Amino acid sequence: MTFEPTDYLPYDFANRRHIGPSPSEMDAMFETLGVDGIEALMSETVPEAIRQDAPLETGKPMSERQLLWWMRQTAKKNKVFTSFLGQGYHGTICPPAIQRNILENPAWYTAYTPYQPEISQGRLEALLNYQTMISDLTGLEIANASLLDEATACAEAMTMAERVSKSKAKTFFVDENCHAQNISVVKTRAKPLGIEVIVGDPDDMDPSAVFGALFQYPGTYGHVRDFTAHISKLHEQNAIAVVSADPMALCLLKSPGEMGADIAVGTTQRFGVPMGYGGPHAAYIACKDSMKRSLPGRLVGVSVDARGNRAYRLALQTREQHIRREKATSNVCTAQALLAVMASFYAVFHGPDGLKAIAQRIHRKTVRLARGLEEAGFAVEPGEFFDTITVDVGLFQKGVIAAGWREEVNMRPIGKTKIGLTVDETTRPAKIEAVWRAFGFERKDDPQSTEYRLPQGLIRTSDYLTHEVFHMNRAETEMVRYMRRLADRDLALDRAMIPLGSCTMKLNSAAEMMPLSWHEFANLHPYCPDDQATGYLEMIEGLNAKLCEITGYDAISMQPNSGAQGEYAGLLTIAAWHEAQGQGHRNVCLIPVNAHGTNPASAQMVGWKVVAVKCDEMGSIDLADFREKAEKHSDNLAGIMITYPSTHGVFEETVKEVCEITHQHGGQVYIDGANLNAMVGISKPGDLGGDVSHLNLHKTFCIPHGGGGPGMGPIGVKAHLSEHLPADPRSGEGAVSAAPFGSPSLLPISWAYIQMMGGEGLTQATRVAILNANYIAKRLEGAYKILYRGPKGRVAHECIIDTRPFQESAGISVDDIAKRLVDCGFHAPTMSWPVSGTLMVEPTESETKAELDRFCDAMLGIREEIRAIEEGEMNREDNPLKNAPHTVEDLVGAWERSYSREQGCFPPGAFRVDKYWPPVNRVDNVYGDRNLICTCPPMSDYAEAAE
Amino acid sequence: MTFEPTDYLPYDFANRRHIGPSPSEMDAMFETLGVDGIEALMSETVPEAIRQDAPLETGKPMSERQLLWWMRQTAKKNKVFTSFLGQGYHGTICPPAIQRNILENPAWYTAYTPYQPEISQGRLEALLNYQTMISDLTGLEIANASLLDEATACAEAMTMAERVSKSKAKTFFVDENCHAQNISVVKTRAKPLGIEVIVGDPDDMDPSAVFGALFQYPGTYGHVRDFTAHISKLHEQNAIAVVSADPMALCLLKSPGEMGADIAVGTTQRFGVPMGYGGPHAAYIACKDSMKRSLPGRLVGVSVDARGNRAYRLALQTREQHIRREKATSNVCTAQALLAVMASFYAVFHGPDGLKAIAQRIHRKTVRLARGLEEAGFAVEPGEFFDTITVDVGLFQKGVIAAGWREEVNMRPIGKTKIGLTVDETTRPAKIEAVWRAFGFERKDDPQSTEYRLPQGLIRTSDYLTHEVFHMNRAETEMVRYMRRLADRDLALDRAMIPLGSCTMKLNSAAEMMPLSWHEFANLHPYCPDDQATGYLEMIEGLNAKLCEITGYDAISMQPNSGAQGEYAGLLTIAAWHEAQGQGHRNVCLIPVNAHGTNPASAQMVGWKVVAVKCDEMGSIDLADFREKAEKHSDNLAGIMITYPSTHGVFEETVKEVCEITHQHGGQVYIDGANLNAMVGISKPGDLGGDVSHLNLHKTFCIPHGGGGPGMGPIGVKAHLSEHLPADPRSGEGAVSAAPFGSPSLLPISWAYIQMMGGEGLTQATRVAILNANYIAKRLEGAYKILYRGPKGRVAHECIIDTRPFQESAGISVDDIAKRLVDCGFHAPTMSWPVSGTLMVEPTESETKAELDRFCDAMLGIREEIRAIEEGEMNREDNPLKNAPHTVEDLVGAWERSYSREQGCFPPGAFRVDKYWPPVNRVDNVYGDRNLICTCPPMSDYAEAAE
Repeated sequence: MTFEPTDYLPYDFANRRHIGPSPSEMDAMFETLGVDGIEALMSETVPEAIRQDAPLETGKPMSERQLLWWMRQTAKKNKVFTSFLGQGYHGTICPPAIQRNILENPAWYTAYTPYQPEISQGRLEALLNYQTMISDLTGLEIANASLLDEATACAEAMTMAERVSKSKAKTFFVDENCHAQNISVVKTRAKPLGIEVIVGDPDDMDPSAVFGALFQYPGTYGHVRDFTAHISKLHEQNAIAVVSADPMALCLLKSPGEMGADIAVGTTQRFGVPMGYGGPHAAYIACKDSMKRSLPGRLVGVSVDARGNRAYRLALQTREQHIRREKATSNVCTAQALLAVMASFYAVFHGPDGLKAIAQRIHRKTVRLARGLEEAGFAVEPGEFFDTITVDVGLFQKGVIAAGWREEVNMRPIGKTKIGLTVDETTRPAKIEAVWRAFGFERKDDPQSTEYRLPQGLIRTSDYLTHEVFHMNRAETEMVRYMRRLADRDLALDRAMIPLGSCTMKLNSAAEMMPLSWHEFANLHPYCPDDQATGYLEMIEGLNAKLCEITGYDAISMQPNSGAQGEYAGLLTIAAWHEAQGQGHRNVCLIPVNAHGTNPASAQMVGWKVVAVKCDEMGSIDLADFREKAEKHSDNLAGIMITYPSTHGVFEETVKEVCEITHQHGGQVYIDGANLNAMVGISKPGDLGGDVSHLNLHKTFCIPHGGGGPGMGPIGVKAHLSEHLPADPRSGEGAVSAAPFGSPSLLPISWAYIQMMGGEGLTQATRVAILNANYIAKRLEGAYKILYRGPKGRVAHECIIDTRPFQESAGISVDDIAKRLVDCGFHAPTMSWPVSGTLMVEPTESETKAELDRFCDAMLGIREEIRAIEEGEMNREDNPLKNAPHTVEDLVGAWERSYSREQGCFPPGAFRVDKYWPPVNRVDNVYGDRNLICTCPPMSDYAEAAE
Repeated sequence: MTFEPTDYLPYDFANRRHIGPSPSEMDAMFETLGVDGIEALMSETVPEAIRQDAPLETGKPMSERQLLWWMRQTAKKNKVFTSFLGQGYHGTICPPAIQRNILENPAWYTAYTPYQPEISQGRLEALLNYQTMISDLTGLEIANASLLDEATACAEAMTMAERVSKSKAKTFFVDENCHAQNISVVKTRAKPLGIEVIVGDPDDMDPSAVFGALFQYPGTYGHVRDFTAHISKLHEQNAIAVVSADPMALCLLKSPGEMGADIAVGTTQRFGVPMGYGGPHAAYIACKDSMKRSLPGRLVGVSVDARGNRAYRLALQTREQHIRREKATSNVCTAQALLAVMASFYAVFHGPDGLKAIAQRIHRKTVRLARGLEEAGFAVEPGEFFDTITVDVGLFQKGVIAAGWREEVNMRPIGKTKIGLTVDETTRPAKIEAVWRAFGFERKDDPQSTEYRLPQGLIRTSDYLTHEVFHMNRAETEMVRYMRRLADRDLALDRAMIPLGSCTMKLNSAAEMMPLSWHEFANLHPYCPDDQATGYLEMIEGLNAKLCEITGYDAISMQPNSGAQGEYAGLLTIAAWHEAQGQGHRNVCLIPVNAHGTNPASAQMVGWKVVAVKCDEMGSIDLADFREKAEKHSDNLAGIMITYPSTHGVFEETVKEVCEITHQHGGQVYIDGANLNAMVGISKPGDLGGDVSHLNLHKTFCIPHGGGGPGMGPIGVKAHLSEHLPADPRSGEGAVSAAPFGSPSLLPISWAYIQMMGGEGLTQATRVAILNANYIAKRLEGAYKILYRGPKGRVAHECIIDTRPFQESAGISVDDIAKRLVDCGFHAPTMSWPVSGTLMVEPTESETKAELDRFCDAMLGIREEIRAIEEGEMNREDNPLKNAPHTVEDLVGAWERSYSREQGCFPPGAFRVDKYWPPVNRVDNVYGDRNLICTCPPMSDYAEAAE
């Protein structure tokens, strides 16, 4: 037969999935750019000297079906035993409606951080619900919109305590009943900051010697103590009291606020977020109102829009690292928005009565478990508890635990003779009986028993979750519609390009996302025995190898659970290496002025002095200035932090030289991995001279942004640094996150992406990311000034558009343009970074030419509007830019503007039938910060606002 | 301890999930109604005589977690072997983006049939894509928007052929190479219509003796024949040619249209819709343009809206059974919209090149399989084929098949000595090798082989899928956004109540939906050995038992895959019983005039004569008229078809008497189960005297409507009828659907609902459904006349609102009110049925009081607008009702109406921020039917329309 096969291969599928422009679209783009194909563009863009010589070897591309099959085999290698391990990780039931409509819904998981409030009202409301829930449960006035995990939240609380305490002490007290990972991460954080950590019994604490103290409530061995007296003594000494509290326990127990605590932290994992072998989950931090300006992380607040209607937005942003840079004392950047949203919906689903019932059920099961052990003759500690008990079994510790494994039950070894048992929402009577069998006796559980053993004096009497949202009708119809209404208010990747320069907002494909929901990935405890996590461990090992191949590094640590955490962990690794070399004094860190704001904050956190290096007018490192400073600080040079390609979007030719000079002066090179999407398959940071990089798996490797987290920031290091990577969190010191592998349930996403693309696909993604950015630069260059290009006039994977001239020429700010883009159906590019008054655009490889054109049409339309203002054809105050974004409210009411409704609402780029309408007009940030409200206002206010 | 436990039990959760009004809301509703609680309302509503005496015994309620655990255990009992069974069911790969964004997205699956086009533009576009795909692949001008399955499509084609043929013959020829289930269902359908079916070799067919013929292409044993000559001979005799064709094969083979066929049918299952042990999948039917008015099922057409913009809607609706009643020759009602949408997106995802590549790969694998067998010495038939071959193995048939099972491979026994092998998209090389091993030899598959064995003369040369939509950029970003845009255009249950009277639009809960996607339910072939389907069979048995308990019947058949199919199957069962009693002459069916339109159509299909029974002014059966007609037709009385509670929403007290009288005259009683949501736990149709009922699992038992299908219409029968239930489709005759259990992959949904509710929960659902309907009736009764109440002034689970007076008083039609409800954010109630000029409202138990109030506010607001017209305050032509629905286009343009934008767009009930905006203004049905276009118009037209 003469037939020619027209098969397409897995690579073609992969290509099609992630590569936006079709081959014919690419041809048209080459023509626009005046280049003869993708390789010609690469050679004009990427300096020959930095290009890798061999193609990526990351295996052959898999089809979606192969991938899912492989994932299924991998999942089967994980054994999901019933966990009695506790320590801040608990079995929980995610209501299926939340799983399907939040976790598995691209409208939620592909959204970006809500920096643009007009297009983020849905998740801002959900996060405000979260803050309200935390504030209520902890009894403290202000709660933020989540932190990474409980252990890092403890560390943040410590540094916050230091900031706000009026005590002169440099010591921080830590309750010995804290979970091991909390102690470990606190110690890691304390050391470079010169804080001494004392771990002990709170009754032995000397309040006068400390600036603050951290208590665990309930304690890791089950004790439920009243810290009121300790806190009172701390306050007498101007010291700050921090309580790390289980929010489920707080449904039955007196709150930290009622004990007088200044700060409360903890994790909301057990509010419907699966354990996921360690993460991601949302931690919380709450504090007294007086300390709110020192609170780390994101804070959602209530404000008004231009029509005076209620609107939410991020409050007090000036606290954040991207503004404060080296003055920041926290580098917290990513939060855990998606998980916080899930936890808040868990509370909305159950309401206070439901949560109380769940907590009571957990407690009663624990009492039954304890009673059974006692009646069999075992000594159970403590006498009063919430969900955790400890039993001394002497020499039988190993035997009982092994007997438990045969029953598919995990118990916690404590010391050499004790066993810890923690009960959760999911513990079945049959599994309580299995524990008893493991202890050597048969007994029938009596689910009807209602015995309680909470300390009488600590039983909660105060209300919580009194706001209407926690008392709404809980029929699933209503819940689903509420989730849909919130989702519809937001603009995410499932509707339009998010052309951010500071974050790579690429496709999160459905095939990559699916394993995340699977039982075998979702329900593993992070401290379960390794042989129950074979699937995870093999996948992580495989992913490590692939990431090493991609980056040119020799070892990877998966522990950092955000990009900023990765930076911090990377610098800690460098510091530890210096110390091992007898060079512990090295503490100067060179950072170019255009660095990510987290860079100086991270350097600060490892106790280094930041020395800024100038940039030339092309946004590249000023080599002369760099040489001079490296020379000057040669004896104390710890390292340099650079971003490659630069934050200005340029492949600097001098990068290798910079690395060499740094090494000559005894320093180490940290290459920020935020821009790795411009390098994969083209150039390896490890080959350029980098010693460490963090990799934003939530940028380059397809983990979705979740509306402001989760993230994953593993670090790659050269071999000489590998033994100084973060330690296991259970080992007492040297960990940066609570779980050994950070947020491992996300890793299947990155593994899937790499495996489905194959080396050539990954490289093509990089090339097309660069092509797309150059296409935008080219189309806009007549209308806008494009800042910072390479020697051949090309940009890398992003481009910076200068909008500064319009302030004077037309009174139009970068903000006006950003808001006008909402009218066109786009999320704004990154504003005023790295250069104030500019827009930075990174289209990524996932966007089609049609979508790029729609964006360019929008930008050109805006330029035309500016021109009209410049030339007096349009009013300087009353024009579509100043009034942007336009809402349905504008359309419905009287129209007294100098331009038409049509001009206002349907600028170039906007969809006609499928237009996205923002739910609010421009949000007033100043008003909100002046009148700070960070919990849900009463519904009556909503009604008013709606009128 | 003194603590009182506040646990909630699974029942409370279940209650909360499905029961809309909260307890306090219910109290407020009782007050409005002036009743003292739910039981008091029941006693005013449901006659004591018909109430069941014992509570439902359907087991204890399960929690969501218990349910999912049970489902998981059940799933594990199904063994998913690789299928080589073919016969119209094939392994297929559903792209994960389609699975997640269509199948698992409530915006798609909770939508209703697109009778209201203004709020259905998204799925109408997707269905138009489907029609275009079918039309292209079959080479015929007109395709409908899906039928239930291939076998019923064959039967529909036969009756259609009879309608359009000018031949006088009463015989239909069926190719012996048709799949067994197609032959069986055709024979079942033919018999009561007096059509003789001849099964034979097409070469032996006598064209002059038949009004039509059905050919299978490719044949069930693999033969690919050119039917051009046969068709030509048929045409010479005025007979109609029907080809049942595999659309995947049509990607490589000459189309039925090119052979001259008049009608083509088939299944699109292998276009990305999992086998699901038999269904649901979308079948298709296509025909020549000249026959379009005889085409059964739904047809999407292109029209214009009130602004002249392009808009889609269902075309030629006058063909449908609900209009034609006893003149209808098909009772087709439900289609398979959700599955057709999936199949159409599969084609959009792959495009013609992709589909061709997939088909070629399937074919090449088949050639490799055949070549291996041949080289091992086996005789393979036929010589040329697409994906199916047959091998004669003599006495070794059982042995080879059993050897296959050991390799986890299913092969098809044919006759006593042959084995059939069909390859599909998912067949792996390793499984081809497994087949060879089962045949007794080892051989390595060579995936590189490119040998072809298609008949040279039948290789397709014509284009297909030439429309732009099949050539759009296929990057996943673009695909996901296209799916989202279409979803957003539609209004489904995930945004608002759908208060239909003709369909119970209740919650489809997430927990119930989840198992549908599981591998072990999704990927079973309907004809796999029973011991591989233990999970399914046990669940079906359990569900049967529960449905018997609920209905008072003794046996259930799951085979009918829609409500209308259930009616038809029920009547067939009665007819078979009469025949077994020697009463085969009984052929008179009494049907009250207010019956569902499908009732007379179904009676027609079993060859019965329909005799109408009058209703009294209360909408109840006129007992005197009924007695008279029963008496008159006593000798020939086959039965009566009644709906209970009546289609007028009243519990008739006389129902038992009607049943008794029917039985006295030798007839059987068919009780239509469409209104079962008003009976569960309250009254059992089997106890009232019913002999048969069908149960709409897609109404009462939570299977989602999918935007117009899938449905499930199992029948319950009394013991004496049980041996006359539909036969296994493989057994040659007596089946009503292609698969033994209809669409079994949907059954976990209904099982889950029953199990999570428990008996008390199910009963409470019924009570609250009645409460909700009465609440609406009460709130609206001052403003509107509520038709048909029971003796105590109550309605059952639905109420009928009379809008006829407004035509004269204000020139306002029921249509105007329906469209105005879109402005308020609601799907319209059922219009003009069962009484012309009325609206029938069924809120279901799932809706909260708040949503009911929103609907009542909307209706009262509309009444107020009508009053304003009546009193001359508003213009009779230019008012918000006549101009409804209002769109953004109205707002943006000049506003020259007699009322304000605010009045037009935000009537009472409409959400402010979260308002649903229909994408088009009122759609012109007449224009569309006059200018019928049923395939995608060119994109350029879209652009024009958008301007």
